[in-house]
Amino acid sequence: MIEEDMNRSSHAGIASNGGRVDVGSYLTGYADGEGCFCVSFSRSRRHKFGWEIRPSFSISQNSDRAEVLRIFQERFGCGSIRPDRSDKTLKYETRCIEDLVERIIPHFERYPLLSSKREDFERFAWICRMMQEDKHLTRKGFEEIVQLAFSVNAGKRKFPREAIKL
Amino acid sequence: MIEEDMNRSSHAGIASNGGRVDVGSYLTGYADGEGCFCVSFSRSRRHKFGWEIRPSFSISQNSDRAEVLRIFQERFGCGSIRPDRSDKTLKYETRCIEDLVERIIPHFERYPLLSSKREDFERFAWICRMMQEDKHLTRKGFEEIVQLAFSVNAGKRKFPREAIKL
Repeated sequence: MIEEDMNRSSHAGIASNGGRVDVGSYLTGYADGEGCFCVSFSRSRRHKFGWEIRPSFSISQNSDRAEVLRIFQERFGCGSIRPDRSDKTLKYETRCIEDLVERIIPHFERYPLLSSKREDFERFAWICRMMQEDKHLTRKGFEEIVQLAFSVNAGKRKFPREAIKL
Repeated sequence: MIEEDMNRSSHAGIASNGGRVDVGSYLTGYADGEGCFCVSFSRSRRHKFGWEIRPSFSISQNSDRAEVLRIFQERFGCGSIRPDRSDKTLKYETRCIEDLVERIIPHFERYPLLSSKREDFERFAWICRMMQEDKHLTRKGFEEIVQLAFSVNAGKRKFPREAIKL
C-alpha cells in the first residue's frame, strides 16, 4: 500500500518536476564535490625533457551509481568510463588535450565551480591551453607548467616538485 | 607574469560567466555526489515504542572547502555546520522535521536528483511527511517507517532491522 502510494507520488513528481534541473549546473555541482582536475607527471624517454605531462579531468563513483558518469560522458561527448584499479569504483576520465580544451574546460567556464576548486580549475585550464599551443615543448613553457601544476592538488603527487628537472 | 595573466583571465571569467550557474541545480548535483538522506534509530525511553527515529539530510566536506556548506545553509535557511566527530571534515546537517519537510524536501522535488539516490530521497521524503503527521506514533505507522527506512542506506546501520521491535 505504502509502496503503491510512493510510486504514484514518485511518478507525479517526475511529471510535474522533471527537467527543472539545469543539467549543466547540476554537473558542475557534482564535479565540485567529486571531480578532479589533475596534472600528473611521469618519466618518459619519448617526451621532451624526459617527462610526460598528463592533465586529466576525472570523476569516481561507486559502480552501483554509474549513471551520473554516463551523463557526464554523454554531455561532454568525450572521455571513457572504466574500473579504477585502486578500488572498487568506476572512473570517468578525459585525458585528450583537445577534448579538455574544447569540451571540458568550456563547460566549467560557462557553469563556474562555486568552491575553491575553481582555482585549481583555472590553473588546470591554463596548463591545458599552453599544451595545446605546444608551449610545453619549450624550456620556459615547461617550467611554467611544472610551477603551476604543483599548485594544483599539491598533496597527492608521486614525484616531489624537486624531482622534475630539465 | 603568468600569475598576472591568470588573474586577469579569472576576473574576466567572473565578469562574463558569473551567475550562469543555476544554484538550485548546482546544489542538487553537489548533493547527488556528497549528500546523505539518512534515517537512523536510537534507543530511547522517552520515545514511543522505545526508539527515536532520526531523519537527517547532511553533507560532509573537508574544512578547507567549507564554502559550499555555507551556500547550502544560506539557500535552505536552516541546518547547522559543525565539525564531524568521526574525522576531520565539516558537516552541514538538518534534523528538524519541519525544516526537512518545508525546506529541504521541496528543493529536491523542484530540482530532482539524477542518480539512483533519488529513490533514497523519495523514501526519505515519505518518512519525514509521515512523521510530520505524527503517524510514527501509531504502531502501523512506526512499522511502515522502519520498513521504508531500512531500504534507505541499508548498509550503514548500527542496529540491524531485526533489533527494532515494538
